[in-house]
Amino acid sequence: MSATPAGGTSARLLISCPDRPGIVAAVSGFLFAHGANIVSSDQHSLDPEGGRFFMRMEFTTEALDLGRDELGREFAREVGDGLEMDWRLSYADEPKRMAVLVSREEHCLLDLLWRNRRGELDAQVELIASNHPDLEPDAAAFGIPYHHVPVPPGGKPEAESALLELLEGRVDVVVLARYMQILTGAFLDRVGVPLINIHHSFLPAFAGADPYRQAERRGVKIIGATAHYVTEELDAGPIIHQDVARVSHRDGVPELERLGADIERAVLARAVKLHLDDRLLVHEGKTVVF
Amino acid sequence: MSATPAGGTSARLLISCPDRPGIVAAVSGFLFAHGANIVSSDQHSLDPEGGRFFMRMEFTTEALDLGRDELGREFAREVGDGLEMDWRLSYADEPKRMAVLVSREEHCLLDLLWRNRRGELDAQVELIASNHPDLEPDAAAFGIPYHHVPVPPGGKPEAESALLELLEGRVDVVVLARYMQILTGAFLDRVGVPLINIHHSFLPAFAGADPYRQAERRGVKIIGATAHYVTEELDAGPIIHQDVARVSHRDGVPELERLGADIERAVLARAVKLHLDDRLLVHEGKTVVF
Amino acid sequence: MSATPAGGTSARLLISCPDRPGIVAAVSGFLFAHGANIVSSDQHSLDPEGGRFFMRMEFTTEALDLGRDELGREFAREVGDGLEMDWRLSYADEPKRMAVLVSREEHCLLDLLWRNRRGELDAQVELIASNHPDLEPDAAAFGIPYHHVPVPPGGKPEAESALLELLEGRVDVVVLARYMQILTGAFLDRVGVPLINIHHSFLPAFAGADPYRQAERRGVKIIGATAHYVTEELDAGPIIHQDVARVSHRDGVPELERLGADIERAVLARAVKLHLDDRLLVHEGKTVVF
Amino acid sequence: MSATPAGGTSARLLISCPDRPGIVAAVSGFLFAHGANIVSSDQHSLDPEGGRFFMRMEFTTEALDLGRDELGREFAREVGDGLEMDWRLSYADEPKRMAVLVSREEHCLLDLLWRNRRGELDAQVELIASNHPDLEPDAAAFGIPYHHVPVPPGGKPEAESALLELLEGRVDVVVLARYMQILTGAFLDRVGVPLINIHHSFLPAFAGADPYRQAERRGVKIIGATAHYVTEELDAGPIIHQDVARVSHRDGVPELERLGADIERAVLARAVKLHLDDRLLVHEGKTVVF
Repeated sequence: MSATPAGGTSARLLISCPDRPGIVAAVSGFLFAHGANIVSSDQHSLDPEGGRFFMRMEFTTEALDLGRDELGREFAREVGDGLEMDWRLSYADEPKRMAVLVSREEHCLLDLLWRNRRGELDAQVELIASNHPDLEPDAAAFGIPYHHVPVPPGGKPEAESALLELLEGRVDVVVLARYMQILTGAFLDRVGVPLINIHHSFLPAFAGADPYRQAERRGVKIIGATAHYVTEELDAGPIIHQDVARVSHRDGVPELERLGADIERAVLARAVKLHLDDRLLVHEGKTVVF
Repeated sequence: MSATPAGGTSARLLISCPDRPGIVAAVSGFLFAHGANIVSSDQHSLDPEGGRFFMRMEFTTEALDLGRDELGREFAREVGDGLEMDWRLSYADEPKRMAVLVSREEHCLLDLLWRNRRGELDAQVELIASNHPDLEPDAAAFGIPYHHVPVPPGGKPEAESALLELLEGRVDVVVLARYMQILTGAFLDRVGVPLINIHHSFLPAFAGADPYRQAERRGVKIIGATAHYVTEELDAGPIIHQDVARVSHRDGVPELERLGADIERAVLARAVKLHLDDRLLVHEGKTVVF
Repeated sequence: MSATPAGGTSARLLISCPDRPGIVAAVSGFLFAHGANIVSSDQHSLDPEGGRFFMRMEFTTEALDLGRDELGREFAREVGDGLEMDWRLSYADEPKRMAVLVSREEHCLLDLLWRNRRGELDAQVELIASNHPDLEPDAAAFGIPYHHVPVPPGGKPEAESALLELLEGRVDVVVLARYMQILTGAFLDRVGVPLINIHHSFLPAFAGADPYRQAERRGVKIIGATAHYVTEELDAGPIIHQDVARVSHRDGVPELERLGADIERAVLARAVKLHLDDRLLVHEGKTVVF
Repeated sequence: MSATPAGGTSARLLISCPDRPGIVAAVSGFLFAHGANIVSSDQHSLDPEGGRFFMRMEFTTEALDLGRDELGREFAREVGDGLEMDWRLSYADEPKRMAVLVSREEHCLLDLLWRNRRGELDAQVELIASNHPDLEPDAAAFGIPYHHVPVPPGGKPEAESALLELLEGRVDVVVLARYMQILTGAFLDRVGVPLINIHHSFLPAFAGADPYRQAERRGVKIIGATAHYVTEELDAGPIIHQDVARVSHRDGVPELERLGADIERAVLARAVKLHLDDRLLVHEGKTVVF
């Protein structure tokens, strides 16, 4: 959202720590002392009296008096350690490496690839993997490697091993763009990077299978989609973004699926962008979105 | 939504029947033959092959060749009986008599009374009843009788009897404008008119008590409100209207309540208007909204 | 929106005529007599006393007792001529032939082609023409012929002739999917089919060039896009559909363009779908949308 | 939006100055040194290289080591003067004094008074003034003094003088809640406090008189309302907030007015709240909204 400087690059500092007076002064003082100019700043406190404090600062790096590694070490030493901070530094010119998992429906995948191509999503898309071969031509049109990793009945362990081999150490984030397989806790433990999923309902309504059928049966007047970080408990991870569309008695399940596809791709793309731009912090099963 | 004729009045015919060819021709032919001019028409079919068919027609009554009672009798004889119709005729110049039940929160009540006063809701508001005395001054400002019917612990049967005495035979619809008491099935059976409730969540998410607290805990990014007809199963009646508002990690429970109040009053007012204008049909736990 | 019957096909009858009693009865009586079952019906009257009346009926054609040509002739003879109707019959199994004109920006074109491929837009896309060669690979990925028709300074007459040669007699509708050339009145006269344009502002605000720059300068808090039929007066044709997005002081012109692109493609796709499904009537510079 | 601390009060510091490195560090360092704890912080820069910089900080005041007057003087001396800042300090426990000007339509006025009564708008409503006597009973129901200041043809100078006598020195902000008189530049100069107006269109579309009639004539599919600060040029002041509603060919001018009333009251209430909470800065005819 905020304008990045035309020349040079920018860095983002994400912080989570116990709230106390002086945090903003300490961080901004440190950055000023080392030649950074803060171009954007967001903060949130759960409770100024002993709650958790969250902050995101974006700053220019042209005039920094330290290298990237040094800056991190100095920040820890001068500020972070003393204030018991969890913190993360990232740079706009080091885009995250991303994998997309998908099944047969192409709308979310295509939208991500198209936004990536036009520079809207700042990621290096390393690979696409799918339990079906159908979307290989779409991947090819964007020049992204496509891996068909089938999941036959009883074959989930082998499939997850194959996926892990593709992913481990090679990507920074995995996006489930309508990947219709449930991933095991063992897989999530081993993959070691965040996963973002799009669920085709307005969670927590209609968790689980066939949400549009559930919605049609209940006669709701609005449907939605939810992008969330994946945790072992199905459809219960921290919600990143949601959106909705108005429907009526005229809309049967096929119409809900069609309308829903538009929301799904928009919500997922937005959630992925927030993650890529380092605008998300997770705390106690919920997200702080800067 | 549709413009009613400037002079004279208009009538609305609501129909539900098994679908088959010729229904529109039969109804419109009947109305034309008796001098009605159709100014608005909506229809919906669950399945042209043997599904249920729903229709709403609004027509001018100035040139009718029959009186109101006669028109109904003739319609049954010439059209309705043969096509196994459930049907209902109502007239724009016979506004429905309405009661509002409320507890301590005034926003929904005030909005209904204000819209009624400015002619937007075409109802005759007969009375307000509450389990608390707090909102009597607001009712007085609009000149509506206010009945304090307390519900002490263990006193629900007496309270429901008192309410029934106020309502039976005197109103055509009851609106629960944040009435925080659960009404028993026995009450619903006896009151004999539709009840419209506003639930302060985007049903089916967060049914039951304290929906804003539930929403805050789950970290949703959108909250909502749902107006529905009341059935014995709590928060499970046919949904009439829903709307939502975007929220963020910054919004604690008080902010959700404040934002939610705006949605609640808008959603309830819209649902009540749809009911008053005879735009709602219920079928298998869902509404058709014309 | 309304469900079409599973078996057989359906037809749509669009009518505009002076309002008077008996129109619905006459049309529905005619359709019933010839074996059509009405599955959807919409009507609108500007004024029941002598205003213009508009109607759209969708009906099944399986049991029709007449051929398609005969049905039209009979309808004119039995109903249309007597009631001074402008009317149009079309069949769901005869999709419209469509051309897309585009310049350099691909988002609207890609969305149309993708929705067409997945069966959401019921058109036969005959060709794409552009004043730039850039988007040929995108067209090729969807297997659609791409014609580069440059418009050098002073070369508009030749370009329009070339376009007319491509279009005349070969398409039923032309979509301007961010085609950044103004078409002359002479061209519009000769092309002889409706043209749908997407303008990247919330018309009538910011007509003309550079609407996002105008919006940024004025400091609006919401931007929009407008799909309209093309008339000789620039950006003044009948509006078909509009949508908006919220923006803030943080959004410079590039952000407005990015956010706007999402609205543009959605609004144009919706407008094209309404046209393809015969849901649009034009009267006195405005659309009736059924 | 942001949570204020439970105990004590909070202050807001609004800053506008030329951008340069070190501003955040200087301000947050000053506040920390004097015992303030920053609970919320927003900033915006038009251009880190020599553009304008805007900031809003909210902080607790319980542990301040200076009085309110002293704090301002010290801030100017230690920070503000050196950095060429325009700045403003305000305290949550010193609500702004507000006047409302209104004509005959009550919806905006009632909504403001209701939100003020329930504590949602933190203002001291000093008086209501109107060129009509109609809304006196509504003002009385909320216990607010109501002044009837008629504006007969040719009587605007006298009316404005009477208004100035009511307002000068007694209010901090004036809200035009559908006040249908144009105020002269002379009046605006003399009243000396900001005025917030609600215009019943989506500006810049349909500026001037009768916007709903203009909207109906143009056939737009969305209508809106705009709250803005008043400047001498009619309907051209800095836009604070806007919102919209979807309309169709079915909506004549009366329906647009009814739908529009709901947007108007919501947009105006939101704009007034933003002003009361010191979330607005004006720069070159546009607002920065924190």
